[in-house]
Amino acid sequence: MDWEMIEQRLLSLLERGKHSELRGALMMLNEVDVARFMETLDKEKLLLTFRILPKDISADVFAYMSAEQKQTLIESIGDNEIRSLIEDMFLDDTVDFLEELPANVVKRVLQNTSESKRNLINQFLRYPDNSAGSLMTIEYMELKRGLNVQEAMSVIRKTGLDKETIYTLYVIDQARHLIGSIALRSLIMADDSVLIDTLMNTNIISVKTLDDQEKVAETVREYDLMTIPVVDNENRLVGIITADDVMDVIEEENTEDFEKMAALTPAEDEYLKMTPFQLAKNRLPWLLLLATVAIFTGMIITNYEDVLNKTAMGIVLTACIPMLMDTGGNCGAQASTLMIRGIALGEIEFKDIGRVLWKEVRVGLIVGAVLFMFTFARVYFINKASIPVCFIVSIALFCTVLMAKSLGCILPLTAKRLGFDPALMASPLITTIVDMTSLIVYFSIATSVLGV
Amino acid sequence: MDWEMIEQRLLSLLERGKHSELRGALMMLNEVDVARFMETLDKEKLLLTFRILPKDISADVFAYMSAEQKQTLIESIGDNEIRSLIEDMFLDDTVDFLEELPANVVKRVLQNTSESKRNLINQFLRYPDNSAGSLMTIEYMELKRGLNVQEAMSVIRKTGLDKETIYTLYVIDQARHLIGSIALRSLIMADDSVLIDTLMNTNIISVKTLDDQEKVAETVREYDLMTIPVVDNENRLVGIITADDVMDVIEEENTEDFEKMAALTPAEDEYLKMTPFQLAKNRLPWLLLLATVAIFTGMIITNYEDVLNKTAMGIVLTACIPMLMDTGGNCGAQASTLMIRGIALGEIEFKDIGRVLWKEVRVGLIVGAVLFMFTFARVYFINKASIPVCFIVSIALFCTVLMAKSLGCILPLTAKRLGFDPALMASPLITTIVDMTSLIVYFSIATSVLGV
Repeated sequence: MDWEMIEQRLLSLLERGKHSELRGALMMLNEVDVARFMETLDKEKLLLTFRILPKDISADVFAYMSAEQKQTLIESIGDNEIRSLIEDMFLDDTVDFLEELPANVVKRVLQNTSESKRNLINQFLRYPDNSAGSLMTIEYMELKRGLNVQEAMSVIRKTGLDKETIYTLYVIDQARHLIGSIALRSLIMADDSVLIDTLMNTNIISVKTLDDQEKVAETVREYDLMTIPVVDNENRLVGIITADDVMDVIEEENTEDFEKMAALTPAEDEYLKMTPFQLAKNRLPWLLLLATVAIFTGMIITNYEDVLNKTAMGIVLTACIPMLMDTGGNCGAQASTLMIRGIALGEIEFKDIGRVLWKEVRVGLIVGAVLFMFTFARVYFINKASIPVCFIVSIALFCTVLMAKSLGCILPLTAKRLGFDPALMASPLITTIVDMTSLIVYFSIATSVLGV
Repeated sequence: MDWEMIEQRLLSLLERGKHSELRGALMMLNEVDVARFMETLDKEKLLLTFRILPKDISADVFAYMSAEQKQTLIESIGDNEIRSLIEDMFLDDTVDFLEELPANVVKRVLQNTSESKRNLINQFLRYPDNSAGSLMTIEYMELKRGLNVQEAMSVIRKTGLDKETIYTLYVIDQARHLIGSIALRSLIMADDSVLIDTLMNTNIISVKTLDDQEKVAETVREYDLMTIPVVDNENRLVGIITADDVMDVIEEENTEDFEKMAALTPAEDEYLKMTPFQLAKNRLPWLLLLATVAIFTGMIITNYEDVLNKTAMGIVLTACIPMLMDTGGNCGAQASTLMIRGIALGEIEFKDIGRVLWKEVRVGLIVGAVLFMFTFARVYFINKASIPVCFIVSIALFCTVLMAKSLGCILPLTAKRLGFDPALMASPLITTIVDMTSLIVYFSIATSVLGV
């Protein structure tokens, strides 16, 4: 049964007022799919469906709904309902949700939250965006050192139900310092009387609350972790981050890189949810900056007016400018993309710059030589140009390729070194810089060969 | 203690022949870090360190080593060592490793593998690259229906040690059909006598062996799964894929998109490990294709020779070509990147094309209007051009922006619809197409305004 059919059946049950049957049908679905179904409903139906949902999944379903639907729902339900919803939700989901709401709605939600939870929420809201602290949840399973396996299992059975995961357990000392981690698997395989201190792994991979989410994602991916503990500056355990949240971080970071590399200010929301004005606002700054830089390109051309207007083959030289610029841009994009990606994945560092540059120079020589021959033949046979003109265009292209490849590796690595985001040094900027330098090379060669 | 210091101490122990101490020190490290240490060792030291490693982590460490070091090691150790290494490794790691080796080494490894394992390996090697089958592992924990909790826990304790994960358990019927999944958490929380059939979740999210890894990653991410079961066409359970492997797939797919969007043939290996020839081979096809298309751009310019050479302001028109082309390319890159990313994340589909186009047209009008004013002023004040020339350049730019934005959304969505990879429709291709159309618009306007 495909999704459309499922959706139709649910909708038909809802419309015909078959509440018990709808409840039964919804219980058969994954929370993600229930939220997906509720996405399409109007306010009244949304509220009705939410109230029909089995109590034990409603908080989970709520966490998967879109910001708009969450807000609609919060504005429709009573204070008691808000209170029990917030109590049932994991803290990280609550914080995410509050961050998306307008201030007046946040206020109403916080008024209906127990004091202890409210204090926690406020503390979480203070962590900077994209920090480990803002990603973590406090519903982790901790064990005090000195317990034996039987005691530990009984703690888990008693308190494990409300934890986000119980598969990695964290051992803390009296002062709440994180001193070890245990996989639930080893507890289950061990004898009841064994002390957990002897089972725990003391070589803990952790992150700090203020660490950037990029670092969190890199660490989790490198060490193949399911969960990573978050500690404060005194190595006290304050939270955990789970692999599912890390996957979202990875995609978010990649989207940001894609956007920056295409001369876009990273967006806050999904494309379809943004207005044309918001979209234009994210695009104009770079376009204006690059158009300003292009003024110099224009000046270079004006400067060499004589070569273009007063030689017999001037028009051929003009006709080859787009090809020269596009190829330069493409070569620069190829090199810079490989650098930016290599830096993001931790495969290339600034200290490799010598090796990388030497490699790019050799690649540039190969690529440049092939394009030299291609272009020479093209200008000779198609544009019917003289040998000197063929030579000017081809050798300028060869130099452009070499420059584009070199800049394409130097700029992102240098940006990284200076603490800037390497993704900003992507093709649009490199294209513009290569444009200018290649035109200067082009016209200098033309001037000296043609003796203008 | 930072990594460099750790590395130096280990190296010093190794060089001074302190084998027991080295062994102790290595036991304190994560397998990933042990592999990282071994990366820098020469053949002799590598072999020595590998033999010093505690037996129970050597297979794990091996799985994290680079292809080169794996091969060096396999070529140095004896048949018996190969046999026990392969027996200790998870099947998915073994298959990954064999895929990287030259044929003669693979043969030697397979000769030293038990027949049953060899058959399994051969079966896995036949799954297409990037399919769910090639990603999965068979070391999952299955339970037969009808067991109670106590019986299930005893099966897990007996056989769980060799499984990749025991946190999600799969329930199968007599014919091995996958009929449910249980979180270990619910087993632990339940009474001993409860039947697992009543605890299991029957609404299973699974993938098929031949499904693409992109689909696997999307499903795991959407449903926040730790593990996803893989079934054959008859819904029989054949393997599982874990979240840590999915994270690597996400990064791999993103890297491929980055490469395609920068006119690169996706690479097989890390940048630093590729030769200049391999790198050039991945870059030349697109460069040559795009340079061929640029021939037409040249023809367009040649065709309008009169406008450029025989009017007083011809040189200003020429000088503005780079700005026109770059801005068109940048606008196209912005729109196409948002499309390609939206499609990859499942946020935009072909059916949205009308909505998206209408949005891009409005964005184009805003961005185009701002750039129109900017350019008009620039050409008037900086190039000291006449009003008609200012108008020609600015209005051509306005049209270019609109075209670039429209093409930038239409091309990727159409590619997706036709079954091609939308990432191929990224900025280099769009830039070249926009170049041609914008030059035609530019010169047509110039011809009619200047009356040449």
